[in-house]
Amino acid sequence: MLSVIVRSAVTKYRGLWLPGQAAVRAMSSSSSSSSPYTSLAISHPAESITHVELNRPEKLNAMNKAFWSEMVTCFTEIAEDPNCRVVVVSGAGRVFTAGIDLMDMASDVLQPRGDDMARISWNLRKTIAKYQETFSVIERCPKPVVVAIHGACVGGGVDLITACDIRLCTQDAWFQVKEVDIGLAADVGTLQRLPKVIGSRSLVNELALTARKMYADEAKSSGLVSRVFPDKETMIAGALEMAGEIAGRSPVAVQGTKVNLIYSRDHSVAEGLDYMASWNMSMLQTQDVMQSAQASMEKKSPKSVAFSKL
Amino acid sequence: MLSVIVRSAVTKYRGLWLPGQAAVRAMSSSSSSSSPYTSLAISHPAESITHVELNRPEKLNAMNKAFWSEMVTCFTEIAEDPNCRVVVVSGAGRVFTAGIDLMDMASDVLQPRGDDMARISWNLRKTIAKYQETFSVIERCPKPVVVAIHGACVGGGVDLITACDIRLCTQDAWFQVKEVDIGLAADVGTLQRLPKVIGSRSLVNELALTARKMYADEAKSSGLVSRVFPDKETMIAGALEMAGEIAGRSPVAVQGTKVNLIYSRDHSVAEGLDYMASWNMSMLQTQDVMQSAQASMEKKSPKSVAFSKL
Amino acid sequence: MLSVIVRSAVTKYRGLWLPGQAAVRAMSSSSSSSSPYTSLAISHPAESITHVELNRPEKLNAMNKAFWSEMVTCFTEIAEDPNCRVVVVSGAGRVFTAGIDLMDMASDVLQPRGDDMARISWNLRKTIAKYQETFSVIERCPKPVVVAIHGACVGGGVDLITACDIRLCTQDAWFQVKEVDIGLAADVGTLQRLPKVIGSRSLVNELALTARKMYADEAKSSGLVSRVFPDKETMIAGALEMAGEIAGRSPVAVQGTKVNLIYSRDHSVAEGLDYMASWNMSMLQTQDVMQSAQASMEKKSPKSVAFSKL
Amino acid sequence: MLSVIVRSAVTKYRGLWLPGQAAVRAMSSSSSSSSPYTSLAISHPAESITHVELNRPEKLNAMNKAFWSEMVTCFTEIAEDPNCRVVVVSGAGRVFTAGIDLMDMASDVLQPRGDDMARISWNLRKTIAKYQETFSVIERCPKPVVVAIHGACVGGGVDLITACDIRLCTQDAWFQVKEVDIGLAADVGTLQRLPKVIGSRSLVNELALTARKMYADEAKSSGLVSRVFPDKETMIAGALEMAGEIAGRSPVAVQGTKVNLIYSRDHSVAEGLDYMASWNMSMLQTQDVMQSAQASMEKKSPKSVAFSKL
Amino acid sequence: MLSVIVRSAVTKYRGLWLPGQAAVRAMSSSSSSSSPYTSLAISHPAESITHVELNRPEKLNAMNKAFWSEMVTCFTEIAEDPNCRVVVVSGAGRVFTAGIDLMDMASDVLQPRGDDMARISWNLRKTIAKYQETFSVIERCPKPVVVAIHGACVGGGVDLITACDIRLCTQDAWFQVKEVDIGLAADVGTLQRLPKVIGSRSLVNELALTARKMYADEAKSSGLVSRVFPDKETMIAGALEMAGEIAGRSPVAVQGTKVNLIYSRDHSVAEGLDYMASWNMSMLQTQDVMQSAQASMEKKSPKSVAFSKL
Amino acid sequence: MLSVIVRSAVTKYRGLWLPGQAAVRAMSSSSSSSSPYTSLAISHPAESITHVELNRPEKLNAMNKAFWSEMVTCFTEIAEDPNCRVVVVSGAGRVFTAGIDLMDMASDVLQPRGDDMARISWNLRKTIAKYQETFSVIERCPKPVVVAIHGACVGGGVDLITACDIRLCTQDAWFQVKEVDIGLAADVGTLQRLPKVIGSRSLVNELALTARKMYADEAKSSGLVSRVFPDKETMIAGALEMAGEIAGRSPVAVQGTKVNLIYSRDHSVAEGLDYMASWNMSMLQTQDVMQSAQASMEKKSPKSVAFSKL
Repeated sequence: MLSVIVRSAVTKYRGLWLPGQAAVRAMSSSSSSSSPYTSLAISHPAESITHVELNRPEKLNAMNKAFWSEMVTCFTEIAEDPNCRVVVVSGAGRVFTAGIDLMDMASDVLQPRGDDMARISWNLRKTIAKYQETFSVIERCPKPVVVAIHGACVGGGVDLITACDIRLCTQDAWFQVKEVDIGLAADVGTLQRLPKVIGSRSLVNELALTARKMYADEAKSSGLVSRVFPDKETMIAGALEMAGEIAGRSPVAVQGTKVNLIYSRDHSVAEGLDYMASWNMSMLQTQDVMQSAQASMEKKSPKSVAFSKL
Repeated sequence: MLSVIVRSAVTKYRGLWLPGQAAVRAMSSSSSSSSPYTSLAISHPAESITHVELNRPEKLNAMNKAFWSEMVTCFTEIAEDPNCRVVVVSGAGRVFTAGIDLMDMASDVLQPRGDDMARISWNLRKTIAKYQETFSVIERCPKPVVVAIHGACVGGGVDLITACDIRLCTQDAWFQVKEVDIGLAADVGTLQRLPKVIGSRSLVNELALTARKMYADEAKSSGLVSRVFPDKETMIAGALEMAGEIAGRSPVAVQGTKVNLIYSRDHSVAEGLDYMASWNMSMLQTQDVMQSAQASMEKKSPKSVAFSKL
Repeated sequence: MLSVIVRSAVTKYRGLWLPGQAAVRAMSSSSSSSSPYTSLAISHPAESITHVELNRPEKLNAMNKAFWSEMVTCFTEIAEDPNCRVVVVSGAGRVFTAGIDLMDMASDVLQPRGDDMARISWNLRKTIAKYQETFSVIERCPKPVVVAIHGACVGGGVDLITACDIRLCTQDAWFQVKEVDIGLAADVGTLQRLPKVIGSRSLVNELALTARKMYADEAKSSGLVSRVFPDKETMIAGALEMAGEIAGRSPVAVQGTKVNLIYSRDHSVAEGLDYMASWNMSMLQTQDVMQSAQASMEKKSPKSVAFSKL
Repeated sequence: MLSVIVRSAVTKYRGLWLPGQAAVRAMSSSSSSSSPYTSLAISHPAESITHVELNRPEKLNAMNKAFWSEMVTCFTEIAEDPNCRVVVVSGAGRVFTAGIDLMDMASDVLQPRGDDMARISWNLRKTIAKYQETFSVIERCPKPVVVAIHGACVGGGVDLITACDIRLCTQDAWFQVKEVDIGLAADVGTLQRLPKVIGSRSLVNELALTARKMYADEAKSSGLVSRVFPDKETMIAGALEMAGEIAGRSPVAVQGTKVNLIYSRDHSVAEGLDYMASWNMSMLQTQDVMQSAQASMEKKSPKSVAFSKL
Repeated sequence: MLSVIVRSAVTKYRGLWLPGQAAVRAMSSSSSSSSPYTSLAISHPAESITHVELNRPEKLNAMNKAFWSEMVTCFTEIAEDPNCRVVVVSGAGRVFTAGIDLMDMASDVLQPRGDDMARISWNLRKTIAKYQETFSVIERCPKPVVVAIHGACVGGGVDLITACDIRLCTQDAWFQVKEVDIGLAADVGTLQRLPKVIGSRSLVNELALTARKMYADEAKSSGLVSRVFPDKETMIAGALEMAGEIAGRSPVAVQGTKVNLIYSRDHSVAEGLDYMASWNMSMLQTQDVMQSAQASMEKKSPKSVAFSKL
Repeated sequence: MLSVIVRSAVTKYRGLWLPGQAAVRAMSSSSSSSSPYTSLAISHPAESITHVELNRPEKLNAMNKAFWSEMVTCFTEIAEDPNCRVVVVSGAGRVFTAGIDLMDMASDVLQPRGDDMARISWNLRKTIAKYQETFSVIERCPKPVVVAIHGACVGGGVDLITACDIRLCTQDAWFQVKEVDIGLAADVGTLQRLPKVIGSRSLVNELALTARKMYADEAKSSGLVSRVFPDKETMIAGALEMAGEIAGRSPVAVQGTKVNLIYSRDHSVAEGLDYMASWNMSMLQTQDVMQSAQASMEKKSPKSVAFSKL
């Protein structure tokens, strides 16, 4: 949680932690959508698919004040939207995200509040919890979230992507757990989720303790991402194709799968099995099973079935 | 749990989810054993090694009604059999398993039972729990289980292999978490165990949410299997060799290792260490330690020692 | 826990589990330090970095009686030493460690104590717990520990390195979970920590149940180590460079990161986030954040900042 | 969760589960307050004390549609209100509450929604979770909540009071876990919290399985309430006096105590201690300690200190 | 687990731990039932009620070899029996139970089995687990179990009753955690369940560490039992009346209540609520709710409703 | 943790939180023992019984600097002392304890250490953890601890007694969770342990949030103590008699009982049973069982058996 940084006098926006930033061409594919958000662009590239784009390309999609609250609104709506079965998240412009936007956050949380250290701490704790919520909503949303990363994914960006379900990246992508570089332990999700999404604890520790960059190949071999694409265009196409595969399957099956995968992460196998049985005792009672099985028998794709909304 | 599928009219056995099945030659190596089972063939290829073969090659080892209960009987016996120190599981015929056998299961569980939805759910929950048990017995059996997979490993097959301890496969093997394709969340173990046996959560989610196939190379690089063999013959030989290595060591050491590895998976490190200390306070008091240490001093393999049965 | 081995008559030191041992040249880089320890050499190769060397090269750094207690003293002191921000652990001489030193341990724990089996077990439990503590102190120490492994890392060596935070090795390194070879389940940490530091459970089980050696390449691809170096010299240089990166960052950030990474390993994501918020509500109130952010704005490395001691 | 009841034709409001209801005189002490709520009356009987009154006396404070959402709004505001340090909850009129208001709820949730059983279940789960939230907000509010119960406390009333911190009642109070009487297992908190607030599990089970009434004396001897008063008037006076004692102490101390008591309920002692240490490392840094200690030295009550708001 | 006692030469049955035993008149109310058991008598005193009587009055219902296995069979059948909605357990003859029957057990488990201490321990562990199961089946049975205790309830008797849901006793009942008196820590449930059924930990510890007797009054005030009756006859009548109350309510509601009460005991409130929501999303879809609510509206008892079997 | 209080100018020792203190006659029964401690008196009133007396009667046994460390040393020694099987703790002089000694602690921890708030917090956390240890050693000591309380038991006194196993008090005893009165949440055990030793959560919350006194009768009815004695003399006699009962039983049985009771408190029933089975698989292999059973058969007390030391 970076809010306290704002105490330092920050005088000029200079691209944050990115080595250089040149001209950034706004090329958001969703520029024509009438988004209610200023930091996000929402579009519907195909049936049942919602595309959420980090959309401040001129600021390298740095996470400003608006972003932290709009994400909560956005994913709360997605969770309730029966027309959405899967979400794709990506970044507009040159990079996925440069992480937190120090300039913008400063104007909001300029001074620590509280009459003594205990009260300042009390308020900080509430603020941290609020920021954690920005990414936890992704996890609580029962619709799968595919995130497609290109260029830089720094600081808060890693917090964001580890809360998503499937991670894809371009060959030029790089990842950086930046927080120790600015004097703090990452507190909105990276330290909790990164070790649970990749298999090498030595690598997790190295990344978090040294803030070194990790590039696409290592991201793939370590399992952080499950696919690497040559460039952003093919990646977005690949992400949408994958999203289409998911959207074409029974929403009862798909969302139940997500809910139980997350439950299982945080419980023993025995507890996960028990929960699963209590879940499916009702969720098996769906016409989707019959329709899907029928399609399977007929050698058709489940995508040929018109499932009821959920 | 697929039992509810049977409500749909399934009229003809056509290989389930396998693209094509041509002629399947029954070539089970255990065809001469007098197995008490109809879906499994049991043999003893070497001292202290039990070989459990999925043995309905003409049906692609599809998991029929007999299978779900025979597995429980079989592994309960193995757990109690002092002559068995390690188990190898493989599939007879062309593939490891095509997953659940819809035809056969249909005849058994044709109608959901219960006077209202709550009662149907109640009964479904008991059925799911019973099917979960079919694979949990593998985990509870203190003897290590090496599974050797060739060709297809679909649906229930993934539930099965993730409950085993060591996974090997052939170059032509492929794996598919099939459940979302037929409208349900996998409920007999895959969602609970797969994330705990491989390191990439993005990959786990992709497999479970899209039902795409994973081939041998990715299975190896992701850690699902720890070895890939060129063909079934060399794999079975390799599996038996590995089983021989395990069978040749102290059963007190080997089975205690399995029990504690599984305990540790579901507990914190501190709790795992505490349990381990309470375990070994008695298990160290075995002649096996002296005999093994003696062999080690004399540069002999532990396999040269004749350990007492356990 | 190997203490009971001593009941067997062990008559001659012959290199333990290493295939051959030839002449071992003592080449400890810390030979000039006036260490208070007989099994460890302590040096300070750079500011804020403590180098702990397993230092009985003529015995292949076998873990003798002194080692098991000196480690506790050593890491307790390091934990309290404000001049230390990061630790490097390596082995003097030809190999990292041959594991437990049966000869030396024998003289200490010659007879199991206790008037009946229950009392012997009671005492064994206390002994095991004491030995577990030897490696748990590494984990409890809030300063990151980088371990650099060359040559053999056998038995107790695997217990040791899995309790460290970052693992590096040379191309000639090999690892062996040796315990089943001498008739016991590993009880001082390997079975608890190895599955949590690498992503392939099949591999973990194979290593622990067969005691086969794993070489550097597999250690890297499985994630046990995060980097492989061509030889010991470059590895030590690499380890010190990495340690320098860590030491150059805010100790509040770095140590808070380690504490929370370990906490998260043993808790659900939700619990980890809650703990993190309670942690950072005070830890964000540090001048390190401002100093680090300032350096970041000025495109300077955090290493340019002189952080207060912790 | 009772929403499904509404499927049954409910034709006339007849006092729900109360044996008889005669004339109910509205005697809410907060009748003059300009409450933004229709089911609750909010007043401030003394400094730093908020009084929340269930305020539909003519309906025996039955929990209607408005109530379930107003409670969330009300306690969310209280949690943020620096002028509130403690809350008193009571019921206006003749009884504390008759439980859920079937009539009013029916108009809202008349039909189960969803195209098949799975979808209906999915929606029911969300509804249950939402209703659970109505009482969980009480627990999450860091300000202590004293509940004062007179007359009947039925069904949802027990869910409510077990989420409060301190329970007081009148001699004529009675409690009833009513849910089994209408064909369901209590699902908004009673089954989870009642066993953790009283010590006799046999009694908990008896109450929940038979729906028998428990009167004030047994409520006191079983520990459900910690004090019994002769009548409502003296109870409200007693509740306010107790609230005054709490409000007069350091809010940092009081609210930290509540937070950690709830944390401890759900964790082991070791985990509770660890969390406590991480909490107090900042919360001890308050002027309240010095001010309170000073008062203590001077034999003054902490109530004489003017603590900063929190 | 007392099996090892049999090593001691036990030469004569002398009433175990009971001070004197005089003539015991067999007065089992179920003497006319054709029970398949030798240690238990099963009867059906009223519709949907199963009465399980410890039925070796001439041996003070000491728990012999048959008892330990018959309990498992008996409760497994009860769990599956749709005609049973509630169970009453009591003891035939003069006392509830004198605890384990040393004489009979001796003939079965005369010698510890195993070639060394580790193997003996291994077998003991399996035996203990098997005996634990004898009482855990009571807990796993979803039908509520009311236990009615008169006279002595010693050793294994306390293990048994703490696994039941509701405990009643006569004025002459007494309870004794006997195990420390014979040199062992109680290992079939008392140490795990007693602290969770009564509220005073000091009392639990005193009972378990000193083996002192506790009489009816203290059993009531401590919450071990929820009702005390003057004599056995009135107690049995009271137990049956209470069982009738439970049997007359919706089995979906009643059994769901038991399942969730036990789940909640072993989980945090948040986890219990989550499980409850997943449970009731299907269990609310029952005609029992409508029927029960209708009866409630009409001021009828739920016992007037004819619920479908479960 | 009260260390920060010392920042306030404390000028005169005036009896802390006790209303008045008059003349305190030193009447420690252990005055003749040559204790190595200044705050504690150690004696051995009977075989296998260790009596630990809080022994600064002139200071009302206020917990000074020496106390906090001597307790750790004392109980560490007791845990290892084979001649001790049970411990009695009481207070010399007029009261049990007045709680923390502000005067003495002030001289030790006068200033918070650390260059910024984060560093001060870091150090405070270590200090709190150290103080928590003072009482956790009581719990970790496998020998049962009986505490006998007379007069006042304030603040730290409640932390102390809730970590003991059995609590006795005199009719004039009173208890006070004092911490909120001095501006902090109790952080060395009360908030974690008090709710787990008494059954009424409403009472726990009331005591902790209002700091009101609780007298002997309520302590008994709430289960905090399991026996009340008319005066200190009879209480000490009663405590020693109870200690004698415990000391006269098998130490393997008694200490295994304590270890497992504490384990069970913090785990589910299923986990407690599993741990118990792993514990007793060795602990049943003791001659104590045979000796105890023999005595039982012969109608002798277990106290007649001469058990081996543990």
